[in-house]
Amino acid sequence: MTDATGAAAPKPTILRRQRNDFPGWYQDVVAKAELAENGPVRGTMVIRPYGYALWERLQQELDLRIKATGAQNAYFPLLIPESYLHREAQHVAGFSPELAVVTHGGGKKLEEPVVVRPTSETIINGCFARWIHGHRDLPLLINQWANVVRWELRPRLFLRTTEFLWQEGHTAHASEQEAHVYALRILTEVYQDTVEKELAIPVVTGRKTDKERFAGAVTTWTCESMMRDGKALQMGTSHELGQNFAKAFDITFTDSTGQQRHVWQTSWGASTRLIGALVMAHGDDAGLRIPPRIAPVQAVVILVRGEGDSADRAEAITSDLVRAGVRAILDRRIGIPFGRRSIEWELKGIPVRLEVGPRELAAGQVSLVERHCSRKTSIPLASAIGSVSSALATAQELLFDEARERMTGRIVVASDVETALEATQAGFAKMPASQLTDGGEEWLNARGASVRCLLPDETGAVQSIVARAY
Amino acid sequence: MTDATGAAAPKPTILRRQRNDFPGWYQDVVAKAELAENGPVRGTMVIRPYGYALWERLQQELDLRIKATGAQNAYFPLLIPESYLHREAQHVAGFSPELAVVTHGGGKKLEEPVVVRPTSETIINGCFARWIHGHRDLPLLINQWANVVRWELRPRLFLRTTEFLWQEGHTAHASEQEAHVYALRILTEVYQDTVEKELAIPVVTGRKTDKERFAGAVTTWTCESMMRDGKALQMGTSHELGQNFAKAFDITFTDSTGQQRHVWQTSWGASTRLIGALVMAHGDDAGLRIPPRIAPVQAVVILVRGEGDSADRAEAITSDLVRAGVRAILDRRIGIPFGRRSIEWELKGIPVRLEVGPRELAAGQVSLVERHCSRKTSIPLASAIGSVSSALATAQELLFDEARERMTGRIVVASDVETALEATQAGFAKMPASQLTDGGEEWLNARGASVRCLLPDETGAVQSIVARAY
Repeated sequence: MTDATGAAAPKPTILRRQRNDFPGWYQDVVAKAELAENGPVRGTMVIRPYGYALWERLQQELDLRIKATGAQNAYFPLLIPESYLHREAQHVAGFSPELAVVTHGGGKKLEEPVVVRPTSETIINGCFARWIHGHRDLPLLINQWANVVRWELRPRLFLRTTEFLWQEGHTAHASEQEAHVYALRILTEVYQDTVEKELAIPVVTGRKTDKERFAGAVTTWTCESMMRDGKALQMGTSHELGQNFAKAFDITFTDSTGQQRHVWQTSWGASTRLIGALVMAHGDDAGLRIPPRIAPVQAVVILVRGEGDSADRAEAITSDLVRAGVRAILDRRIGIPFGRRSIEWELKGIPVRLEVGPRELAAGQVSLVERHCSRKTSIPLASAIGSVSSALATAQELLFDEARERMTGRIVVASDVETALEATQAGFAKMPASQLTDGGEEWLNARGASVRCLLPDETGAVQSIVARAY
Repeated sequence: MTDATGAAAPKPTILRRQRNDFPGWYQDVVAKAELAENGPVRGTMVIRPYGYALWERLQQELDLRIKATGAQNAYFPLLIPESYLHREAQHVAGFSPELAVVTHGGGKKLEEPVVVRPTSETIINGCFARWIHGHRDLPLLINQWANVVRWELRPRLFLRTTEFLWQEGHTAHASEQEAHVYALRILTEVYQDTVEKELAIPVVTGRKTDKERFAGAVTTWTCESMMRDGKALQMGTSHELGQNFAKAFDITFTDSTGQQRHVWQTSWGASTRLIGALVMAHGDDAGLRIPPRIAPVQAVVILVRGEGDSADRAEAITSDLVRAGVRAILDRRIGIPFGRRSIEWELKGIPVRLEVGPRELAAGQVSLVERHCSRKTSIPLASAIGSVSSALATAQELLFDEARERMTGRIVVASDVETALEATQAGFAKMPASQLTDGGEEWLNARGASVRCLLPDETGAVQSIVARAY
């Protein structure tokens, strides 16, 4: 419980409207809710305390689920010898254009340049080759929380930055089937579950096309979500690497019959991009709407004025909320106009506000404001804690329902690429994957749309989800 | 609760003896307890799962205390324009020899080279200049968990690596006095408290000499500890930066009288080096001895053989321990000889082992082995949970007492630099700071000793702590 997340309220400002200028609205919200700002090196990002608090909550939820699959965290070097990247041909081809290269260290030119990791497949697999000997060492399930650097020509805060924070999992298995099962387990039990249950954003899951899959993977699985402007955002990917890296790095094990075999591998990642998704999936013209389960602050108790025992009562309510397990803070900045403070908390998307004013208090009441629907209700002070708890549960559910209805309502069934392209103006198209052959996918790409994933329909036929994407 | 931290036990190996070869012993423990290993780029480090689990526990404890002082976490870019570093003269002079420089990004030569952060004063203060306007914005208390790179010519795992993980705090205050109080609060309430209470390592706290203070600071406060070979290790430092960076980055605020003034600042950090301290302060010839409060695994239940209902009983004990709040795991790898497994857990310094064997079980007993003193006791199965809990509490206390007695016993009072230097062969010297003038400090430095800190004695006279240091 602190006084507030920031010392002074920002000046009341009006955001650009979502409907008129979605990218402009996004920029405004990220800046004015104090989530992030640009760093001095092009494409880099400063994640401000409120943005980082969201990331910390998300990390906790992902980490819990990652560990539940049996994976352990570890840490691998930021700096990778350039030669490592060259060992897997598709991988180096995919990442070369985006590399940051260190040529000087400790005041001297380096004999071999080193790259700042764009991802850690190569350096981690160098370790796996040393760590894995027999079938008892498998499966080896490793996760890393780290920063990575991919030089970005058209940066956008959270969505596409030269440096970003993420987790990357890397695993080795004794069989292709086991690697396949584990990659899907990460997709559903870690990514889909976190995104749907915590971020309250529904996802479509499926396989990437050959063109869209990760550089070095055999199969890439993905979770895709729809933003409020109908565009798609990739929420997390899980790759089956087959034996590509195992062969490039010679990662072998002795099986139970004494034979030397290459391992089968997966890798998977989710990043600070999910904060961008949170903004664009739920935010409205007044700012963020943070689902309570992921919210660093679930309820703010606002002391309207300092008269009588208002301050003591507001403090008592806040303490009671914290004791009841609610992440609550007290805003006692009576020197700042009440309206300006309300706008600030609305902008930051705090799920529930409790306004404690002297007149209402005298009548044994406080006002409860629900951010997801902007509803203000007078409630008895005596039942405030219960009301807040139930408002939080409701908000989580309704935000998910709203996002799910929007997504399902905006998936248009299309039978050809022209209809699919048309549909991507407002949402997703679901089109038979057979339409992608003979240049269909390239035709869409050339017109700003892409295939987000492939998935089987009820009949078993493969469908594609086509959208414009972030 | 998982089966074990690693799938297969390492081969039983003998460590070099502490007494004969302390640095060799350290290398052996770090490798064989699977804490860390060298990365392919010179000086970089791979932190293996067990080493990283220790770091995660330590992070939790530090983070809790940092937030209790009112600081908030945020994240700043890894890449800093070279010109930023040049703004504070002492700072750039201090860090220039250690910089890693990125000259190419995205396939092109950069117009201005960027450095990989060696610390974040410059980039964070660029933000502070934008974020701070009035006295209401102060104090601004920011912490960052991050990796930093300082090119290291003589690397040693955890102690001195080209890349390391740390937290760095950066704060701005309205007055010199407030900055001073906060810097000391970090020193004692965050660093000293974590190191003494969690790591069970006593510290000496004091001020650095002008020669030893941080590049750009006015005063550097430090916690220093004694390792088992008598050498000193710096555990965490807290700097008063005065207005050096405030002036270099023009960080001003309007005070309550409407006047523009520069802020007063602090910065402070603690790193993965603390894992090295944990190894060297408590480890013995059998391996690590991890204090229970920081231990990722506090108790391991070892299934000796698979006969009868041993496995079920061992599982039940493990569950009971976890329910009682003990971080316990079950080692059911009966395919690996019991002796080899015992050596592994001893090497990893797990505070308590519970050996569940069929014969003892039949008599309603299990064996409890305490790592800190290698004592093995037969205890009634019925009271196992209570015995483990009390053994953990005792171990934490005794490890601290042992380290404290060693340190106090090895601090020699010296009246001149010759006596002080002699004392550093086995421990620390406490010498009047007046002996450091006229080249005394340089005389010690030239002979491999250094002044760890200055502190007042009972009479108020300034004493210096002289030691050989890591």
